[in-house]
Amino acid sequence: MTLEETATRIKRMEIRGAGRIARAAAKALLDYSESINDLDQKSYIDRMLRASDLLAGVRPTAVSLPNAVNIISKPLLKAETLQDAKEGLEDRARAFITHSEHAVTRIGEIGARHIRDGDVVMTHCNSEAALQCIVTAHHQGMDIEVYATEVRPRNQGHITIKTLSDAGIRTNFIVDSAARYFMKEVDICITGADAITVNGAVINKIGTSQIALAAKEARVNFLVAAETYKFAPRTILGERILIEERPADEVLPDAILTTLPHVTVRNPTFDITPSEYVDLIITEQGAIPPEMAYTIIKEHLQWDMDNLCTDYPYCEEE
Amino acid sequence: MTLEETATRIKRMEIRGAGRIARAAAKALLDYSESINDLDQKSYIDRMLRASDLLAGVRPTAVSLPNAVNIISKPLLKAETLQDAKEGLEDRARAFITHSEHAVTRIGEIGARHIRDGDVVMTHCNSEAALQCIVTAHHQGMDIEVYATEVRPRNQGHITIKTLSDAGIRTNFIVDSAARYFMKEVDICITGADAITVNGAVINKIGTSQIALAAKEARVNFLVAAETYKFAPRTILGERILIEERPADEVLPDAILTTLPHVTVRNPTFDITPSEYVDLIITEQGAIPPEMAYTIIKEHLQWDMDNLCTDYPYCEEE
Amino acid sequence: MTLEETATRIKRMEIRGAGRIARAAAKALLDYSESINDLDQKSYIDRMLRASDLLAGVRPTAVSLPNAVNIISKPLLKAETLQDAKEGLEDRARAFITHSEHAVTRIGEIGARHIRDGDVVMTHCNSEAALQCIVTAHHQGMDIEVYATEVRPRNQGHITIKTLSDAGIRTNFIVDSAARYFMKEVDICITGADAITVNGAVINKIGTSQIALAAKEARVNFLVAAETYKFAPRTILGERILIEERPADEVLPDAILTTLPHVTVRNPTFDITPSEYVDLIITEQGAIPPEMAYTIIKEHLQWDMDNLCTDYPYCEEE
Amino acid sequence: MTLEETATRIKRMEIRGAGRIARAAAKALLDYSESINDLDQKSYIDRMLRASDLLAGVRPTAVSLPNAVNIISKPLLKAETLQDAKEGLEDRARAFITHSEHAVTRIGEIGARHIRDGDVVMTHCNSEAALQCIVTAHHQGMDIEVYATEVRPRNQGHITIKTLSDAGIRTNFIVDSAARYFMKEVDICITGADAITVNGAVINKIGTSQIALAAKEARVNFLVAAETYKFAPRTILGERILIEERPADEVLPDAILTTLPHVTVRNPTFDITPSEYVDLIITEQGAIPPEMAYTIIKEHLQWDMDNLCTDYPYCEEE
Amino acid sequence: MTLEETATRIKRMEIRGAGRIARAAAKALLDYSESINDLDQKSYIDRMLRASDLLAGVRPTAVSLPNAVNIISKPLLKAETLQDAKEGLEDRARAFITHSEHAVTRIGEIGARHIRDGDVVMTHCNSEAALQCIVTAHHQGMDIEVYATEVRPRNQGHITIKTLSDAGIRTNFIVDSAARYFMKEVDICITGADAITVNGAVINKIGTSQIALAAKEARVNFLVAAETYKFAPRTILGERILIEERPADEVLPDAILTTLPHVTVRNPTFDITPSEYVDLIITEQGAIPPEMAYTIIKEHLQWDMDNLCTDYPYCEEE
Amino acid sequence: MTLEETATRIKRMEIRGAGRIARAAAKALLDYSESINDLDQKSYIDRMLRASDLLAGVRPTAVSLPNAVNIISKPLLKAETLQDAKEGLEDRARAFITHSEHAVTRIGEIGARHIRDGDVVMTHCNSEAALQCIVTAHHQGMDIEVYATEVRPRNQGHITIKTLSDAGIRTNFIVDSAARYFMKEVDICITGADAITVNGAVINKIGTSQIALAAKEARVNFLVAAETYKFAPRTILGERILIEERPADEVLPDAILTTLPHVTVRNPTFDITPSEYVDLIITEQGAIPPEMAYTIIKEHLQWDMDNLCTDYPYCEEE
Repeated sequence: MTLEETATRIKRMEIRGAGRIARAAAKALLDYSESINDLDQKSYIDRMLRASDLLAGVRPTAVSLPNAVNIISKPLLKAETLQDAKEGLEDRARAFITHSEHAVTRIGEIGARHIRDGDVVMTHCNSEAALQCIVTAHHQGMDIEVYATEVRPRNQGHITIKTLSDAGIRTNFIVDSAARYFMKEVDICITGADAITVNGAVINKIGTSQIALAAKEARVNFLVAAETYKFAPRTILGERILIEERPADEVLPDAILTTLPHVTVRNPTFDITPSEYVDLIITEQGAIPPEMAYTIIKEHLQWDMDNLCTDYPYCEEE
Repeated sequence: MTLEETATRIKRMEIRGAGRIARAAAKALLDYSESINDLDQKSYIDRMLRASDLLAGVRPTAVSLPNAVNIISKPLLKAETLQDAKEGLEDRARAFITHSEHAVTRIGEIGARHIRDGDVVMTHCNSEAALQCIVTAHHQGMDIEVYATEVRPRNQGHITIKTLSDAGIRTNFIVDSAARYFMKEVDICITGADAITVNGAVINKIGTSQIALAAKEARVNFLVAAETYKFAPRTILGERILIEERPADEVLPDAILTTLPHVTVRNPTFDITPSEYVDLIITEQGAIPPEMAYTIIKEHLQWDMDNLCTDYPYCEEE
Repeated sequence: MTLEETATRIKRMEIRGAGRIARAAAKALLDYSESINDLDQKSYIDRMLRASDLLAGVRPTAVSLPNAVNIISKPLLKAETLQDAKEGLEDRARAFITHSEHAVTRIGEIGARHIRDGDVVMTHCNSEAALQCIVTAHHQGMDIEVYATEVRPRNQGHITIKTLSDAGIRTNFIVDSAARYFMKEVDICITGADAITVNGAVINKIGTSQIALAAKEARVNFLVAAETYKFAPRTILGERILIEERPADEVLPDAILTTLPHVTVRNPTFDITPSEYVDLIITEQGAIPPEMAYTIIKEHLQWDMDNLCTDYPYCEEE
Repeated sequence: MTLEETATRIKRMEIRGAGRIARAAAKALLDYSESINDLDQKSYIDRMLRASDLLAGVRPTAVSLPNAVNIISKPLLKAETLQDAKEGLEDRARAFITHSEHAVTRIGEIGARHIRDGDVVMTHCNSEAALQCIVTAHHQGMDIEVYATEVRPRNQGHITIKTLSDAGIRTNFIVDSAARYFMKEVDICITGADAITVNGAVINKIGTSQIALAAKEARVNFLVAAETYKFAPRTILGERILIEERPADEVLPDAILTTLPHVTVRNPTFDITPSEYVDLIITEQGAIPPEMAYTIIKEHLQWDMDNLCTDYPYCEEE
Repeated sequence: MTLEETATRIKRMEIRGAGRIARAAAKALLDYSESINDLDQKSYIDRMLRASDLLAGVRPTAVSLPNAVNIISKPLLKAETLQDAKEGLEDRARAFITHSEHAVTRIGEIGARHIRDGDVVMTHCNSEAALQCIVTAHHQGMDIEVYATEVRPRNQGHITIKTLSDAGIRTNFIVDSAARYFMKEVDICITGADAITVNGAVINKIGTSQIALAAKEARVNFLVAAETYKFAPRTILGERILIEERPADEVLPDAILTTLPHVTVRNPTFDITPSEYVDLIITEQGAIPPEMAYTIIKEHLQWDMDNLCTDYPYCEEE
Repeated sequence: MTLEETATRIKRMEIRGAGRIARAAAKALLDYSESINDLDQKSYIDRMLRASDLLAGVRPTAVSLPNAVNIISKPLLKAETLQDAKEGLEDRARAFITHSEHAVTRIGEIGARHIRDGDVVMTHCNSEAALQCIVTAHHQGMDIEVYATEVRPRNQGHITIKTLSDAGIRTNFIVDSAARYFMKEVDICITGADAITVNGAVINKIGTSQIALAAKEARVNFLVAAETYKFAPRTILGERILIEERPADEVLPDAILTTLPHVTVRNPTFDITPSEYVDLIITEQGAIPPEMAYTIIKEHLQWDMDNLCTDYPYCEEE
């Protein structure tokens, strides 16, 4: 698959999921670099930087894409020889792929340590990383019971309870509105994240923030399981995460809606849970308090003002 | 319709709704009393008390039933003559019916005064009294916008948005999980109640307490619209309101559930909103703080320890 | 002074202050009744009811006026003879005047019991009743220190610190913005009220609710000193207390404002402190929790749905 | 036992406990009244009022004493004949004794309805009424587990766990500092009260307010079990409940203290739990929200401003 | 202007404002270094260190001064040759000046991204950085409305509303006490800072913390716009920021104060907003959560224990 | 003392206290290294790594032990020559010992800056570091008053008040339950820590979290004094700090317990104070917000994923 093919498939969402698109981009950069054998240092670097820009911009709201590209293309800017640049980039691409494949496993292992035998866990939506924590704990022999929500309007909860039931975990299925009702029975909440901002706010499936609020009210710990590439670097520059609104017919059949002239369906996909309702974020790099998001972005994702600013006008002046 | 027929129809839920069953019981007592013309005082009272007991016990969890019967049968215990007893009971039965029929209208008028021109109102489930407040304000010429929830699993929100759209009120329809997301746009929340306890806790459709919590978090006033016969006298004696759990297939089709051996559906119908999240309860007797529930029960519903205790063993000793 | 003269002087605000206008109305009704000697019962009652209506409506937002008139004119509705009606009304008018004159003294005595030797008290605006609590405690020999705010835009704080200094009480004068800064030094807050709603919300000088919030944050008790005629009966019917906005030039000189085409001055006189920030309301009838406002309105001010409804259309039907 | 003997024994604390001293006073008034057979109405009333004053003032801080005397001596002030006065007083004295003897039983029955099968209950100190709720629930067949605190410095917890163990109830004994640690395991807290103020604040054993705060933090219901004669009428007049400080050697042996010249032992017996941390107060008259304390004082204890004011100077003027 | 002249003008406050005094110090160090051409390495470094100490200590409470001097003089300690030291220092001085001049512009650009079209913004006092965020958003075409406070006692709000009106931004001018009253209309609060401590507490104009508290109560985001040189390094060592109290006559004319023997004016200039009420701090280095203050001090201001400790006795031992 | 002897004495708790065992381990490694003079690089490193492992694992829950060993043995992994390795390790061992000996002194100096003249300080248990802050402030001439708790069940408060009294500091001794009662008198709380997790939660003597909660409720600052080696690196991997439960007879004599068949004593030694109740942690490296725990662990304790993972199976794969 060529670089352009990969870009196209990501754009068309044939390749989906934060981890998969990041790994696809890494693989594409690796293959592309390996295919270049006859250029001088400057030409190699120019070409790879253009390839990086192409991939990073294919789906601007998928934060894992620029995160991956940034980590992998770092050596281009600092290498002193062609060999340094090429080997550096290719090594990082391979390491990224390996690391990313293990990320969910690691998160599961770290997260499972926060679950105790006999715990009742509540989860919302269908997060691979969050479920990994629960399933890992279950495999370690802990007796665990789960409350899983329906997750209107797309009912992702149906997938969640299938995963849990298949793993042999005792699961209660509830409507989203019942989260606070059962919160007093719950020992710990674990959800995933779609993105995490510089101040530790968690963007996740609509309804997450309500559950976090109800958990706070009842002194129940609220954990978020998220790979580091879910952290959104541009929020350092003040960029807001846009909350997508999806089609009305996910919520209300058109046949009904058309009979109701004064009714509009509002269907936001995500909401924002403020950091004060989040006790820990479990990444493959360890468990951190949400306020450390900035450090993750700087240390693990290797962003700084310089590369963040590349396409922001006010950075040009320096 | 005879007394027994009325009792049967209430029991079979052919007569439903807090207001309707209360009025049916009042009408049955009135007709029954009018049909008795040849008894002496003691026999009349005995017979009417038996009729009262019969009706009050038909659906023990429907709090409006004993509330109505108690108010209407009061004169039986204090009357000095047959005429006093009979006229007293019949007058009260007629007054109760009239009063009850106007209750929702009055609540609408009182509640509308808490809405200001331009307000955005959030409501949950499908409460006649709560909607009456909104519609009355709209009819008074106020520009009002509503957020109405879907109300899983039975989707009562569909009825709510039809009522609102038919009235010409601009309405946004959202999933239950999106209540906190939109709360910052909301000026006031108004819901109904299925029952209200002596300490002002509101039993209402599952999800109500989550919305009330999110309203509190955002300093949005939360109002409850409820006829006085929703107040539950026996909670003075410590009686807990039982939260009914309804069938699993309301939430998840049996076809799916049977494939998931470790999954149980939990489907509670109501939750409990503590009084600290409720700013006002709007009754047809006026707007009161939730802490005044005790006074409503004593003054308007005319319960006291003596009649409350009738069938509690520890009361016998006095 | 004739009834009309009294009405006119109240209207023109030549007679001001909740207590003074209530007593003026009582005196006017008393004099008017005493001047009527030749009418039959019905004519007397009709004339007095018209007089009552006239006075009660002179300044509709001054809640003490209808409160006084309602208490005094009660006997008109229940009296069986002319003598009963006339004596009843006149007795009540005299009692009201006496009672009202002593109300602030009583409030001071009750409030002073909530102050301990060595206490630091914060007050806002210039409330006769609140200052009476402080001064009474001082006269009882307690060592008291006060923080008094400036109270922009009218600087009523200047009057307050004069009263306190004249009484020999150590006083700190601060800008309104400094209330939270000094709150950690404060043992108790005491303010007055302009009106109190049925659910115990306190309408008082703008800035009061900020101080109450800062007191709550620091676990400092917040007391309100208010005569019972400050309680607003119509809030039972859902009536909102209107918050008056006063002229811009109180806040910003016209000479400046006219140079700022995009600037509007907003100058609300009062704000609303929710009952959850108020620990006690000290009335001349005793100290009560704010949630008991309803009881004060019913028992002490003698309002009920019947007289409250007189001029509300939906009451006609009964 | 004569009236004077009863007064002396109460004074010397030979008769102790809120209920016992109230009943002793009632018995003393009953016997004294029965012994008077030859006086006219006025003399009888004068003598009984003096007797009432004598008993009510024997231990001014024991609120149950004036509460009992007030209820019993009410008929003296309103009776129209000697017989009315005497029979009225004697009937009330007998009723009070009977009622008081049953109060704890009733509280247990009402409180038990707030406990569910399988509940974990936390209690503090050693309250007969609170334990009665737990034991009654246990006797009804519920499976209950209790966390009971040590209650320094007097270790009243030792008595509590003996009562619970003797009743066969599974009990965990913890130091006072461990209350928050175990709060997440707890379903409901129940304590007693030494006194309850007009705004629903609960004066109880030192440490109670910390537990209530920790319960609030974890959304655990906090109930107070208290006979109505624990409500303190004079708090309506602003009277503060004095918090007694007991001897240092309860906390630290004198032998140690004398070696520490800069150390003072502070040993307050009670603390004050604000009403916002109390969900319900369970009295023998029913379960009420704490804000209804005023109503209990007025309706059940039959105090009003007139009899409250008897010995307050500012009341004389009326 | 010589080094001494610059020092004197800063001392006399002829050069004022955090940014201006920092740039003046940088310019003075640059000029001074450029004027030294004939010294050996050690003598150059000694002389520059003395110059640095002189400038850093001119106004000890202006935190931007030692911050600037520390960044610029860093190369003196690590340089291996005279040329390294001299060029290093001069490069840093020039970079600091350039950077500082652009800081407010950058903050405006980052901050504007947190404002949405149609937002209502509240600000307090007169912060160049905070206003830049608002004005930048306005220039980007957003429709913005502002609530600006009066800012007693010096009325800096008058300057703020002039800036906003001149920019054509719709502005409401309110007294400081009205902040909570209007908070429900507000979407976002933005203020500046005079200093920020290691744990993210914001020292700003008196009244700021009250507004932040009211914003928290209403779930309104509270942002602080501050250049990185506002962060106070010595707070790492536990140093408290002193809150200056200014003259009484700013608050109350002497003519009045002298007539009030028991009155003292307390006039603190700043208050402290705890980090839990601050959602984000917008610096020219990006938007960070307040808890990251420590990182800013270490990474951007380049302080560590060694240079922090220079003049602290307990550091000598190492 | 040989390496093995040191290990044994630490294991037997003959060497106790976080600082002392860390220094003993450092000294043992230093002596052991100095005794090795004839090995090649690889053999030296192997032997020292085995020695490190031995010491680090002697008491697995004493977090200061692996922290010390990790810092000291770092050079083994990176040294290029035998001399580098040996000198590096020995230098670090000596530096660690010196640093550790001064740590409490430094904490005292930093902490004292957070205490103001006239402050009332509350402390719990018996923390050398916390007391050092108080005593240092006292020695600097500040007038300080302390509330110290009894600290059941082991009464460590007796040691605390002796230290304070010997230092001449005015001290109030209270039972643990009285902390909230006196909190309104308190200006600042300072306690120690046994361990601090990656998200800033403080593990300290049972009861600490209750006091922190009561401090939060009353807006009283809560500070923790702790050497950096109290921070627990493995919490980054999700490891939970185990809360030890100690013998029942510390709380209740066996003689009593054996008579109570249904009673179990629960005696946890520590509880967990969440970071939101902690304002600052004072380390010898400066005062930091609790959210910076991660940075301390990484920068000062020099842990990273690689050395953290050594004995975790999921790390092997890389």
